[in-house]
Amino acid sequence: MKPVCLVVGAGAGIGGTVGKRFADAGYHAVLCRRSDQQGLGKLVDDITKAGGSASGFLLNAVEPDSIENMVASIEADIGPIEVVLFNLGAQIGDRLLQDTTYKAFEMGWRMATFGLFRLASTVCPLMEARGKGVILVTSATAAVRGNKGQHSHAAAMGGRRMLCQSLNAEFGPKGIHVAHIVIDGAVDAPDTLGKMLGAEKFQQLRESRGMDNDGLMLPEKIAETYFHIAQQHRSVWTHELDMRSYSDLAWWNH
Amino acid sequence: MKPVCLVVGAGAGIGGTVGKRFADAGYHAVLCRRSDQQGLGKLVDDITKAGGSASGFLLNAVEPDSIENMVASIEADIGPIEVVLFNLGAQIGDRLLQDTTYKAFEMGWRMATFGLFRLASTVCPLMEARGKGVILVTSATAAVRGNKGQHSHAAAMGGRRMLCQSLNAEFGPKGIHVAHIVIDGAVDAPDTLGKMLGAEKFQQLRESRGMDNDGLMLPEKIAETYFHIAQQHRSVWTHELDMRSYSDLAWWNH
Amino acid sequence: MKPVCLVVGAGAGIGGTVGKRFADAGYHAVLCRRSDQQGLGKLVDDITKAGGSASGFLLNAVEPDSIENMVASIEADIGPIEVVLFNLGAQIGDRLLQDTTYKAFEMGWRMATFGLFRLASTVCPLMEARGKGVILVTSATAAVRGNKGQHSHAAAMGGRRMLCQSLNAEFGPKGIHVAHIVIDGAVDAPDTLGKMLGAEKFQQLRESRGMDNDGLMLPEKIAETYFHIAQQHRSVWTHELDMRSYSDLAWWNH
Amino acid sequence: MKPVCLVVGAGAGIGGTVGKRFADAGYHAVLCRRSDQQGLGKLVDDITKAGGSASGFLLNAVEPDSIENMVASIEADIGPIEVVLFNLGAQIGDRLLQDTTYKAFEMGWRMATFGLFRLASTVCPLMEARGKGVILVTSATAAVRGNKGQHSHAAAMGGRRMLCQSLNAEFGPKGIHVAHIVIDGAVDAPDTLGKMLGAEKFQQLRESRGMDNDGLMLPEKIAETYFHIAQQHRSVWTHELDMRSYSDLAWWNH
Repeated sequence: MKPVCLVVGAGAGIGGTVGKRFADAGYHAVLCRRSDQQGLGKLVDDITKAGGSASGFLLNAVEPDSIENMVASIEADIGPIEVVLFNLGAQIGDRLLQDTTYKAFEMGWRMATFGLFRLASTVCPLMEARGKGVILVTSATAAVRGNKGQHSHAAAMGGRRMLCQSLNAEFGPKGIHVAHIVIDGAVDAPDTLGKMLGAEKFQQLRESRGMDNDGLMLPEKIAETYFHIAQQHRSVWTHELDMRSYSDLAWWNH
Repeated sequence: MKPVCLVVGAGAGIGGTVGKRFADAGYHAVLCRRSDQQGLGKLVDDITKAGGSASGFLLNAVEPDSIENMVASIEADIGPIEVVLFNLGAQIGDRLLQDTTYKAFEMGWRMATFGLFRLASTVCPLMEARGKGVILVTSATAAVRGNKGQHSHAAAMGGRRMLCQSLNAEFGPKGIHVAHIVIDGAVDAPDTLGKMLGAEKFQQLRESRGMDNDGLMLPEKIAETYFHIAQQHRSVWTHELDMRSYSDLAWWNH
Repeated sequence: MKPVCLVVGAGAGIGGTVGKRFADAGYHAVLCRRSDQQGLGKLVDDITKAGGSASGFLLNAVEPDSIENMVASIEADIGPIEVVLFNLGAQIGDRLLQDTTYKAFEMGWRMATFGLFRLASTVCPLMEARGKGVILVTSATAAVRGNKGQHSHAAAMGGRRMLCQSLNAEFGPKGIHVAHIVIDGAVDAPDTLGKMLGAEKFQQLRESRGMDNDGLMLPEKIAETYFHIAQQHRSVWTHELDMRSYSDLAWWNH
Repeated sequence: MKPVCLVVGAGAGIGGTVGKRFADAGYHAVLCRRSDQQGLGKLVDDITKAGGSASGFLLNAVEPDSIENMVASIEADIGPIEVVLFNLGAQIGDRLLQDTTYKAFEMGWRMATFGLFRLASTVCPLMEARGKGVILVTSATAAVRGNKGQHSHAAAMGGRRMLCQSLNAEFGPKGIHVAHIVIDGAVDAPDTLGKMLGAEKFQQLRESRGMDNDGLMLPEKIAETYFHIAQQHRSVWTHELDMRSYSDLAWWNH
């Protein structure tokens, strides 16, 4: 039975690509996303056509018991979850305080912070019993500083970062590797950036960033580092790292 | 009509003492706390006996509309809120993940993070219209690093810190001073530390910290700095500062 | 005999103004700067005319024994040094690596980092013997993040910040309050900003920042906070704080 | 002609092992260390016996022109330096301020901060002309917080961290990858930890950390991550990461 790599938030950018990277290495990738059954199917097909093993599920992570049941059925039917990638963001674009409803603020927390808490509460006992496991969390610079218009996003990501440190403190010694990965730049991801910008603007951006597109962060290249972090020997675990394109300023240099 | 200093979370430690400090300086202090009408009455009496002006209200901050209605009625009946101290914590003691219920995790966020968001959403438009205002937030080291057993607390405080930075970015230029104050040490506060430890242990701690008690952080002394920050000229605002007793290690030195 | 407030780096901006603030409160201010005897004389005159007590000395802080001898002669001839403000910067403007000579890089360290180390090595034993003392350090955002062109400055300030934390860890429990103050904005200071920009541009900047000039940080207002920090009760010491104008973005929001 | 990986500070711990890792991947490793010709020879032999390519040189990095000449002769005689590992520390153990001589304080800076500045000043123009290069810097938690007794070490490491950010800001867009790696734990390194503790204590520590020794950070495992970072595609560069054993508390949790 293959070990499972569970991706919560598996679009065509980081999430799906990381799933594929683990599948390439012999994991069974379980890809979960909220919507777009067709896009999900394509991700699973891409993996299986390449000789890998994958399943895809639509999952509304903010719904009660959704994550909990998903974990339970994977463990029952597919295999032991060895790696989890929590890849849900809470970016809703820049909004002034007066345009940030209570509901929007809560939704950010419910997805990005509480979602990870629920996932960790569910998988950590399983991983602890097996003496090993990896929890990768895709994060953003909003986790380390709050900008204008980012009330909901920054609060959700900042809370999540502290949660990751708290999880790491409890579960590191029990063999569970928690890593918080700060993505500091635009990712070449049609499902998120592409939809935010629209097809035309997205293509313009891709072209303006050079022939090689490497001003945008390439998901396959991001996935290499996620995979490396998950494979680190337990004597040398990384808890936090940042990633950005060579051509981008670091957030602290803007 | 006196300007109002509203304290959300007014126990006999930092909250009530800061209220008194502002009352001493000519503000009308509005003290809000969840319970203990008697303790609240005593705080108000202490202020009025000293020649100051104060009101006290029981307020369950997690209840919908509680903060919003309180702000509205203060503005209608008492005076313009010039200074707000958000002094609610979310410390529930150290708890392993398995002992941290979803409800406890959510309650931490609801009090410490969402509570501030609701308060800011309510008072910022008023302050912005007047071109000035001060929002002081009492924080803890859990806002800057997550420790073992602090899942709920750290997530709530870390989210709040990022929210404060986001509020500051939007409202600083509009004349609203947001300050995030990291209290790094035990406060000589009977209502929080005292209750947590019990009367006897609390007294032992006070005695062990020396005749002058200055190993515990003295609320009146903390209040002096809160007051100073609130009075800073707008060309020299402090957004974040830490405070601890001379005899304590900083959190980064433990 | 009045307690002494020693200012190393006493121009007409923060340094001289802080000296005056302490003199107003009954300290004898000892103002030291590298050059401009006339400007120094004017600062001393301003203080004495206002009824305060002050001395001024030209001091080349990078010269061996300069700081050490100054401290010794103050203690012998004037009074006990209760407060030190280390106000030397190492800003040399933006320079590419290839334009940053070894000498310039070393000079930054020699002034801003080693200078404080020498000062601390000299005054800490005196303060420790007296069981009290205050060391205020004016810092810059280069201490918390390195920008392009800031090789020398950032290395010097970053090293100094860590030195301040190390000093604080050793000497806090001995009654010496070390505070690291991050000035995040342009100061309305003719001796530094004024000289850097030239008289005309400086005046333009002052005018563009509004009638009240409070887009530039006003030295007298900065001095109020320095003074407050130095007076904090030892149960509530602040080690680090930032300061900026309400109208400026925080460094992390740029 | 093989690309060169230059290691400054090549003992039997991180430095030599990283050199070997790059040699395994086809680089020519140039190992430099201050003393112990025999130990150096052994490192070079180990690499060549394993089929790799390496040279070893004794190098006193604080000596003027030492680093500069080494770079020049490598480029002239061996090959283009594609990767540099700056692996010099400045740890001298805990020393009170009064026991930290001016000379010791300066030596820390001269090795750990100025040494990197000199190296960067020398290799960056070469790398920039080739449009690519990697500068890896081994760092310590003293770079992010100053502890008691760490005056020299923390000042040197903190300055270096800011220098790395400044280098990154200038040279990232020119294709030079600067990475600052915070090693937060004891490394299983006979040349540093072993000598500090003495043979017997070192062996005890190794044994107490478990059969697998993975409470101590294993240099070969560290080297895997260094190698990965150096190979990251330029669209996804990491500038900073931490590493520690699963069984160790992170520095912020102590």
